[in-house]
Amino acid sequence: MPDQVTAWLRDFETTLHQRLVSSDAAPRELAAAMRYSAEAGGKRMRPLLVFAAGEALGVPPDSLDGVACAVEIIHTYSLIHDDLPAMDDDDLRRGQPTCHRAFDEATAILAGDALQALAFEVLADDPLLAKHPRRQLRLIRAIASACGAAGMAGGQALDLASLNQAIDHPQLERMHRMKTGALIRVSATAPAILSDADSALFERLDRYGDRVGLAFQIHDDILDVSGSSLQTGKPAQADAARNKPTFPSLLGMDESRRAAARLCDEAKAELHGFPGDTSALAWLAAYAIQRSN
Amino acid sequence: MPDQVTAWLRDFETTLHQRLVSSDAAPRELAAAMRYSAEAGGKRMRPLLVFAAGEALGVPPDSLDGVACAVEIIHTYSLIHDDLPAMDDDDLRRGQPTCHRAFDEATAILAGDALQALAFEVLADDPLLAKHPRRQLRLIRAIASACGAAGMAGGQALDLASLNQAIDHPQLERMHRMKTGALIRVSATAPAILSDADSALFERLDRYGDRVGLAFQIHDDILDVSGSSLQTGKPAQADAARNKPTFPSLLGMDESRRAAARLCDEAKAELHGFPGDTSALAWLAAYAIQRSN
Repeated sequence: MPDQVTAWLRDFETTLHQRLVSSDAAPRELAAAMRYSAEAGGKRMRPLLVFAAGEALGVPPDSLDGVACAVEIIHTYSLIHDDLPAMDDDDLRRGQPTCHRAFDEATAILAGDALQALAFEVLADDPLLAKHPRRQLRLIRAIASACGAAGMAGGQALDLASLNQAIDHPQLERMHRMKTGALIRVSATAPAILSDADSALFERLDRYGDRVGLAFQIHDDILDVSGSSLQTGKPAQADAARNKPTFPSLLGMDESRRAAARLCDEAKAELHGFPGDTSALAWLAAYAIQRSN
Repeated sequence: MPDQVTAWLRDFETTLHQRLVSSDAAPRELAAAMRYSAEAGGKRMRPLLVFAAGEALGVPPDSLDGVACAVEIIHTYSLIHDDLPAMDDDDLRRGQPTCHRAFDEATAILAGDALQALAFEVLADDPLLAKHPRRQLRLIRAIASACGAAGMAGGQALDLASLNQAIDHPQLERMHRMKTGALIRVSATAPAILSDADSALFERLDRYGDRVGLAFQIHDDILDVSGSSLQTGKPAQADAARNKPTFPSLLGMDESRRAAARLCDEAKAELHGFPGDTSALAWLAAYAIQRSN
């Protein structure tokens, strides 16, 4: 891991912690459930994409703290809800009991709900971004759209509808582009929105985010087949047990690996013409398909 | 019902419908569940408070359409989640099967999640408000805070924790101030935020909203004891069946009625010094404790 990425990660954990404990008015159990899931570790892929895209555009990381927290908070809420008994019914997440196992189902639902609200509070609150309120509003709109019915929540609905169904490769890609791709894309483009970057650079980050998002998901499916529970922090081969369509089940393992590598190359091919350093973006694209968890 | 209120209601249903069908990209079943709950009727108390406070301040109703939709969409999402088996486990809402009964539990959770995201998309999107982006950001912050861990979601957590517990009157009030009061208050103050009203008027609307919100909840508890399922569209005496602390169970029916009437008077006492017409606000305060459903 490059030193720069390590530094972003360290600072991010501090900022996130501050955002999570700032409200004394929240009931203790609910606040504990929110922190439990948000601070359980995780790869922090989305905040890292925010900071890396910021570096490529010359946007300083401390002006992106709010956005980075918001996208990770939204991601955390979606994991809590996806793990619920009525959804994927998972007991293990990031090597720990899932939120509804560690607390209870009602608390997990409310922790997810409150985290989503907190993300938008953070996005509307950030004083550093407030220098450009119109851009800030544009970003809120983009993030709300990415996590709503046409994005993340809609993708999860398609995912659940796909169980035991014979869906094809384009349908699988559409589902993942909504479920995980939309939030990853907006993480990569957020610094472009906030700095009102040239539209060519915005488009490159958008395509980069799209390819990285899909490659990340293909690699997730590959890890589900080849990885151990100890590595991934999730139950092994949970997809197959659930008869869930995946890239390996549709394309085979070898072709899935090749598809992920192709997408990673396509993502890196977008990294030209930026005023700043794109090495962290290149590293993240490679990391998406090389990580072991 | 005053003609003005009838006109607001009619226009509101049209605007809300447009906001709900605007996304073709959402999976059909999920979009249907969102519409099912949002268009099931309901009193539309929160949007009416937005329009009535706007009238008192001289803010035209069409510039408040987005806020009115957003607060009702948030209210709808909270009802869907509160009705879930892990929460209040209700089968009936507004005289119809609850969302998870009409669809399924996973779809209901996701419909709630997507509605919350939609509310913030609408709040960040509204072109009429965009003339004052800083005020718009302030409003988003206020609404996000009102529905998060220190507001609506936190209040629901306290509500669930209160089952079978001996809580006292102040604790019951605190819970309701968070669970329903916070969103009602911000509905009343939203037009003041958007028009950057004098702080005295903001404070009056804030106190008005606080009193109306609490009176509304006391009356809800009274209706649960005295109303029929046919009247309320909800199962009768559900609170007692669940051993849930209510105003009548703590104060008795007579004292609960007196408390609601006192709060209604306190709310109306705030309605002075406004540049516009406060009669709709006065009517809504009375309606909160006189309605039969």
